[in-house]
Amino acid sequence: VGKLRMVLEYDGTGFHGWQAQPGGRRTVQAEVERALAIVTGEATKLVAAGRTDAGAHSLGQTVSFELGRDLEPERLRQSLNGVLPRDIAVLSAAAAPDSFHARFSARRRSYRYVVENRAARAAVLRDRAWHVRSPLDIDAMRAAASELLGRRDLGAFGRDPAGRNDVRNLESIKIRRLRGVADGHVLAFELTADAFLYGMVRRIVGFLVEVGLGRRQPGEATRLLAGEGTAPRVAPAQGLYQLSVEYPALALVAA
Amino acid sequence: VGKLRMVLEYDGTGFHGWQAQPGGRRTVQAEVERALAIVTGEATKLVAAGRTDAGAHSLGQTVSFELGRDLEPERLRQSLNGVLPRDIAVLSAAAAPDSFHARFSARRRSYRYVVENRAARAAVLRDRAWHVRSPLDIDAMRAAASELLGRRDLGAFGRDPAGRNDVRNLESIKIRRLRGVADGHVLAFELTADAFLYGMVRRIVGFLVEVGLGRRQPGEATRLLAGEGTAPRVAPAQGLYQLSVEYPALALVAA
Repeated sequence: VGKLRMVLEYDGTGFHGWQAQPGGRRTVQAEVERALAIVTGEATKLVAAGRTDAGAHSLGQTVSFELGRDLEPERLRQSLNGVLPRDIAVLSAAAAPDSFHARFSARRRSYRYVVENRAARAAVLRDRAWHVRSPLDIDAMRAAASELLGRRDLGAFGRDPAGRNDVRNLESIKIRRLRGVADGHVLAFELTADAFLYGMVRRIVGFLVEVGLGRRQPGEATRLLAGEGTAPRVAPAQGLYQLSVEYPALALVAA
Repeated sequence: VGKLRMVLEYDGTGFHGWQAQPGGRRTVQAEVERALAIVTGEATKLVAAGRTDAGAHSLGQTVSFELGRDLEPERLRQSLNGVLPRDIAVLSAAAAPDSFHARFSARRRSYRYVVENRAARAAVLRDRAWHVRSPLDIDAMRAAASELLGRRDLGAFGRDPAGRNDVRNLESIKIRRLRGVADGHVLAFELTADAFLYGMVRRIVGFLVEVGLGRRQPGEATRLLAGEGTAPRVAPAQGLYQLSVEYPALALVAA
C-alpha cells in the first residue's frame, strides 16, 4: 500500500471541470481515475489541490491517492500518459508520506489569468483567454490590485467551499504584458495566496478589468473589501490557469 | 465592382489547410468563401498571401477578392465575423486597388514557429507547438541560422510551388525563449523573407532543432545549401504560425 503524489497539466476546454460528476460528463478527475484503473487494475479516488472550473486549465494540478500495491512512480507516470487522452498529461509522479494530502498539505497556490486585449475578434486564443476589446490601463489595475494584498477577509471576491471563513493571505498579484506574444496584446495576471476562495481569481480579475476599462476607480477595492459597493463581475473560466501548488518540504518526504 | 483586402486569424487545428479541396474537407478558404456567399449573396474566389498547411495557424493571413457590388468594408468584416466559425476571425477589411493581389503584391512575409522544449508530455500546447523533449542549445541553433541568411538558393529547404527557381532572400531568423510563458520552456523561431518556398519554414526549423539537439553541427547549414548532406527533417505543422505579410504602400492605395 502506498500514497502517491502526481502533478498534472490539462487543457480544460473539453472538460466539465475537475470534479467527477454523476451522469458521466467528461471531467479531468474521472479521466485520470479511469486511466489509473486501466493501468493499475485498482479503483482509486483522487484528491486534488484545487477543483478547477469547467473550461479552466491547469499547468500544475497536484493530486494525491493511494494504491493497494507498490508501483514504481516513474513507470506509472509513463503508463498513464500512454492511456490518457491528449488533453491531460502527467508531468511527474512520486511516492509521498501517508500523511500527504494534496489539498490540506498545500501551503501556497498560484494561478495565472490570461486576457487577450485587442479590438479584433479572437480565433487562436478563443478558448484560452478572456477577450477584452477596449484597451486596459495597467497602472490603474496595479493600483487596485495592491489594495487587495495581505491577510484579510476576501468574502467580496468568493466564498469558502466549506462555508467556514473567508480570510485568506493574498501574497501577490503581478500584471504584465507578454512581450513577443500575439503582438503584445496579451496580458497575464498572476496571483499567489495561501489558499483561494471559490471563484476568487475570476472575481478579482473581473474587478481589475473593470478598473482597467475605467468603469471603476482603483479605490473601490477597499470599499468592496468593506462589504460595500456592487459585486465585481466574474471573469470567464477559459482565461484561468492553475499554475502551481507549493507544499512544505516535510509534507513531501516519506517518514 | 470592388477589390477588397482582408487580414485573417485562424486556429489551423480543425482544418485541412488553407486551400479549398474537392470532397468537402474543411479548409479555411472554403469556410471564408462560404461566409462571404452568405453575407454578400455572391460566389467569390479568394487569393491568399500564403497557403498554410493542414494544422498550421495564421495570425495575419492576407486575402484579396472581388465583389460585384460595393460594401462598406468594416460592415462586411463584422457581418463575416458573425457568420464564421469560432476558429476563424477577420481582423481587418479594406478597399484595395484593382491591381492588388494578396500573393503577387506581397514583398515580405514573416512566420513564427513555436517549440515546447521540456521532458514532460504536452497537454495545453499539444496542437499549438512542436514538443521536443531534450534540451535545445540556442547558441548552436543561432550559429546555424546565421549561415542561412541572405539571398541564395534555398532549394535544400523547400521548393518553389511553380517550379521556377528556389532563390529567396531570407532576411532574418530570430530565436528566443518566451519568458514568463510555460515556465520558460517555450521557444519561438521567427523567420522573415521576401517569399518562402513550399515547406521552407518547417524544414529550416527541423534542421535547426537537429542542430540544437547536437545531432548536426551548425556548419552543416553551408553543406546543405551546397546540395550536400542528408535532407533535414520537416518540423510538424502544428507549431507553425503565419505571422504577417507586408505590401508596398503603393499596392494598398486605391488608384
